[in-house]
Amino acid sequence: MHVSQTFIPTRREVPADAVIASHRLMFRAGMIRKLANGLFAYLPLGLRAFRKVEQIIREEMDAIGALELKPPVMAPGEIWKESGRWEAMGDAMLRAQNRAGADLVVSPTAEEAFTALVRDELSSYRQLPLLLYQINTKYRDELRPRYGVMRGREFVMKDAYSYHAGEAGLDETYQAMGRAYRRIFKRCGLSVIPVRADSGAMGGSGSEEFMVESVIGDNTLILCNACDYAANVEKAACRPDHPDPAALLPLEPIDTPGVKTIEELCVFLQTTAKDCIKTLIYRVRQAELDLSGAPGCAGLLRRKNAPDAPEVYPEVFVAALIRGDLDINEAKLAGVLKAPEIALAADVDVVRLTGAPVGFAGPVGLRSLPVIADESVSAMTCAVTGALAADRHYRHTAYGRDFSPWMLTDLRTVRAKDRCPVCGGELYEKKGNELGHIFKLGYKYTRSMGVHFLDENGKARVPVMGSYGIGVDRALASVIEEHHDERGIIWPLAVAPYQAVIVPIKYTGPVKATADRLTVELEAQGVETLLDDRDERPGVKFNDADLIGIPYRIVVGDKNLSGGVPKVEFKHRKDTGSQLLEVPKAAETIAGLLRGELTQLRREYT
Amino acid sequence: MHVSQTFIPTRREVPADAVIASHRLMFRAGMIRKLANGLFAYLPLGLRAFRKVEQIIREEMDAIGALELKPPVMAPGEIWKESGRWEAMGDAMLRAQNRAGADLVVSPTAEEAFTALVRDELSSYRQLPLLLYQINTKYRDELRPRYGVMRGREFVMKDAYSYHAGEAGLDETYQAMGRAYRRIFKRCGLSVIPVRADSGAMGGSGSEEFMVESVIGDNTLILCNACDYAANVEKAACRPDHPDPAALLPLEPIDTPGVKTIEELCVFLQTTAKDCIKTLIYRVRQAELDLSGAPGCAGLLRRKNAPDAPEVYPEVFVAALIRGDLDINEAKLAGVLKAPEIALAADVDVVRLTGAPVGFAGPVGLRSLPVIADESVSAMTCAVTGALAADRHYRHTAYGRDFSPWMLTDLRTVRAKDRCPVCGGELYEKKGNELGHIFKLGYKYTRSMGVHFLDENGKARVPVMGSYGIGVDRALASVIEEHHDERGIIWPLAVAPYQAVIVPIKYTGPVKATADRLTVELEAQGVETLLDDRDERPGVKFNDADLIGIPYRIVVGDKNLSGGVPKVEFKHRKDTGSQLLEVPKAAETIAGLLRGELTQLRREYT
Repeated sequence: MHVSQTFIPTRREVPADAVIASHRLMFRAGMIRKLANGLFAYLPLGLRAFRKVEQIIREEMDAIGALELKPPVMAPGEIWKESGRWEAMGDAMLRAQNRAGADLVVSPTAEEAFTALVRDELSSYRQLPLLLYQINTKYRDELRPRYGVMRGREFVMKDAYSYHAGEAGLDETYQAMGRAYRRIFKRCGLSVIPVRADSGAMGGSGSEEFMVESVIGDNTLILCNACDYAANVEKAACRPDHPDPAALLPLEPIDTPGVKTIEELCVFLQTTAKDCIKTLIYRVRQAELDLSGAPGCAGLLRRKNAPDAPEVYPEVFVAALIRGDLDINEAKLAGVLKAPEIALAADVDVVRLTGAPVGFAGPVGLRSLPVIADESVSAMTCAVTGALAADRHYRHTAYGRDFSPWMLTDLRTVRAKDRCPVCGGELYEKKGNELGHIFKLGYKYTRSMGVHFLDENGKARVPVMGSYGIGVDRALASVIEEHHDERGIIWPLAVAPYQAVIVPIKYTGPVKATADRLTVELEAQGVETLLDDRDERPGVKFNDADLIGIPYRIVVGDKNLSGGVPKVEFKHRKDTGSQLLEVPKAAETIAGLLRGELTQLRREYT
Repeated sequence: MHVSQTFIPTRREVPADAVIASHRLMFRAGMIRKLANGLFAYLPLGLRAFRKVEQIIREEMDAIGALELKPPVMAPGEIWKESGRWEAMGDAMLRAQNRAGADLVVSPTAEEAFTALVRDELSSYRQLPLLLYQINTKYRDELRPRYGVMRGREFVMKDAYSYHAGEAGLDETYQAMGRAYRRIFKRCGLSVIPVRADSGAMGGSGSEEFMVESVIGDNTLILCNACDYAANVEKAACRPDHPDPAALLPLEPIDTPGVKTIEELCVFLQTTAKDCIKTLIYRVRQAELDLSGAPGCAGLLRRKNAPDAPEVYPEVFVAALIRGDLDINEAKLAGVLKAPEIALAADVDVVRLTGAPVGFAGPVGLRSLPVIADESVSAMTCAVTGALAADRHYRHTAYGRDFSPWMLTDLRTVRAKDRCPVCGGELYEKKGNELGHIFKLGYKYTRSMGVHFLDENGKARVPVMGSYGIGVDRALASVIEEHHDERGIIWPLAVAPYQAVIVPIKYTGPVKATADRLTVELEAQGVETLLDDRDERPGVKFNDADLIGIPYRIVVGDKNLSGGVPKVEFKHRKDTGSQLLEVPKAAETIAGLLRGELTQLRREYT
């Protein structure tokens, strides 16, 4: 392809809002242009790289037997109401009404659409498993779209959904998908950190996020400096670090006028947060955990939101305990309760449930609601706690003697310097961006949308489901984040928009003839080649070649053509040194090099 | 690909709303499923065929130097307001508001998006011409979506836009695009009728529609039975068919109490419609035609809707004359006036302008507005016309003697049995569906959106624009409309989802071994092969093979494998007869046949 015949509008300056490298470079290299906030157009060079990433994903999906579909981008609102997400998605989902007044959704994801399709086609266990995917336009109405295509509003996602007769089949596909994701990222040249993730509002358990490190990442990762433990902070665990048990002393009520927070308590009692028990009251909606035997829950009614859905409590309150220097991880607490949503209770509810003003809750004598304690509390034998009365606390509170929680579990927010739960090494934090996510969805959609199949015994059953996404735009931008220098992009070979660029010093005479011939020869050998035929100074062409980051650069100049066998200068974008290649053998040499590098890459990922 | 490992849910029954062959067959063959009214999902088999059509279009676009872009599907409402189409598109355009209250459009077409991109990048004539395209999702909120993907609400369109320094460049690209379209349709196996079309609300002149004949077509085509003349009825011309001029008689006013229509007049005066002149008053908005010298228009003000836009009349009235047995073609009248919109005037305006009740308008003495006459009127020497007074007509009205229109032109709606304007042959009508449309848009968008470039002399100028669309879904459905029989689809080789299907009579023992081996061999030779490995009766498998329409069918059965050289039965889907191929040579023979047929096709279209 001649540069003059394509459309690569390179720039020196960048828009003010382009603060990260990939955004700046994609703009400067003429790969993308902004049409509106969060809405980008890919220009020819950008689209070529985009298609490479897309094709790698497609090949790896096909390789594990996933079947590509193309559902509409516009989905009927009706199926989102069936799944219950019409409400749950909130403002992030863009809605429209057609001329007949029917609700439409610009798909932010497609669990509903695939599940609706499968519902109509599925009858027998013999059709399972089904593993379906699309690579298609999505829209999420990000509150603050930024960082170019890294966090745009419209983007392309590969989203796959699997349906199984049982958990074993789901696990098999989930594992195969995890391996496919590792191959995809490897092929794209991306260093990902696979982390155990909280599956959040999506429901279900068993999930893995594929993260790339990024200073602008919106996830906090907890990593171990000694082993490969990696987790999203929302799910990260750590080794318990119980202080030595203190001597047992008699429980003693004390007056603490106006002392409501742990900090005030530490000052007032000349103690440390480590010796206090924090008691927080949460309001929980749609909890699925069976609480029928828990304090204060005997009379609570459960209900089903759909015929096949599990019974849930519309609203319930719980008390969560944790050592005073630690924080409750609300995602963990929600997970324990199998609830989509938890939040601190309103003051009025705290007063009603604890019989005391806010600030004086504590586990001793608390019977109005289930008490769930973090494991850190189980080692506390001489703690300060609220006494369920205004301006009163207890000291010398002992776990097991003065109170016993209804449940003891892991509720702790892990932090840097905590100990790795696997090896005991020191944990540290990193910011990360999520590129992909695989997870076992469970029965959330298949139940709420009423999907059934007949099993071997002719009995109607609900299939279990998995869901697997990769953001294509974000993956592409992340490749650039990982592969660039101060002069521009340095494309990994497998996703480079072109593999070779030919730069004639001046596009006339024998230089032009050689450049033209090399282009034809390289293209005949299957090397995707760009010929910079512009009438520009060599410096401009070199700068652009570095900026757009084509892996192989071939410079054709008079000097190397004259005297003896004509030669051209060959250089990898990533290297500083160059070598001379004899013109008659140049195309074959370069094509061989390309094949060799691609073969080497294939060996690494397969 | 093994049938058991893909997802081709064939059906015997069809939904009640599937009334045309392509809709029925795409549903039955498991190619598509409906998610909601006008919203379809392509299943794996459908998507394969879809991608083939898409790829043919892409190759032909690339071959003429068009550059592929990927703008967002969601476009900012702002640019539609700039072009003036925010209003003009009406209910067909689906709108939404993002969380910040900004207007968004689910792109129904993309003149605005491309023009906005070009506006920001264009500076010099040296960048022109620019020929850009996308193959991307579109949405039009069809009032009555039906006929499956033939008229869905969401669809994929290849839309290309070109920008030129002058009309000559536009014409060159327009011609190249016309040739590319012919190749595309030929490659897809589609018989298209290229017709001169009215460019409608899009503005500009020079346009060609590519139609396929269809009983459910929403266009009426006028075709000649003697030459290749073809036109959309909105633009069709015909050879004038003036009756012999009648003898001149003196103009004579007559009382015609309560006689308002041509029909009533014919009865009342014992004459025929051919001897009457029909006079219709139209209200015209945004007319660009210079009317400053026309009757009644001297004082009318013109204004510009945008700085670079031409001056237009916000509102003007004209009288249109035509022979009483003919009908005014309003698209032609609008074209003459260079107006986006015309409509019959309200009664109150007719009374005000003609000084008479509705039904008594006529050209004699009509000076309050421009009179535009169809050519048929110029031969009328003894006609009946309204007399601009209640219950009064004239007879013996002679063109040129009693009145002279301000303009004489072609305003006639052509009908079957009219004479071909090219050869004089007899015209006939057909219903057609538009698959593609190319046209010279002119300056509508570049002017209203303020696009400029500096010409050779450093002078700022506005580029001229062309626009070129093909509906991918509709093209695919039309292939099936043209290529099917009562048993199913008969895919043309170039767009078949698979090229060969192997049907083992029973998928066990030597039959299975042979079928497996042939599949591997065919795939190794590049033949896209489907192996029906299901445990179904042969009849079911034959029926499905016919239904999904794979061009080459290979039947593997015990009978032909035993005794002598083992053989398989080979048959074209389109033929009734079959032949036996020796197993060892079968794959090579079939691959050779495929290459031969594809080469032959390439010869036909290049």
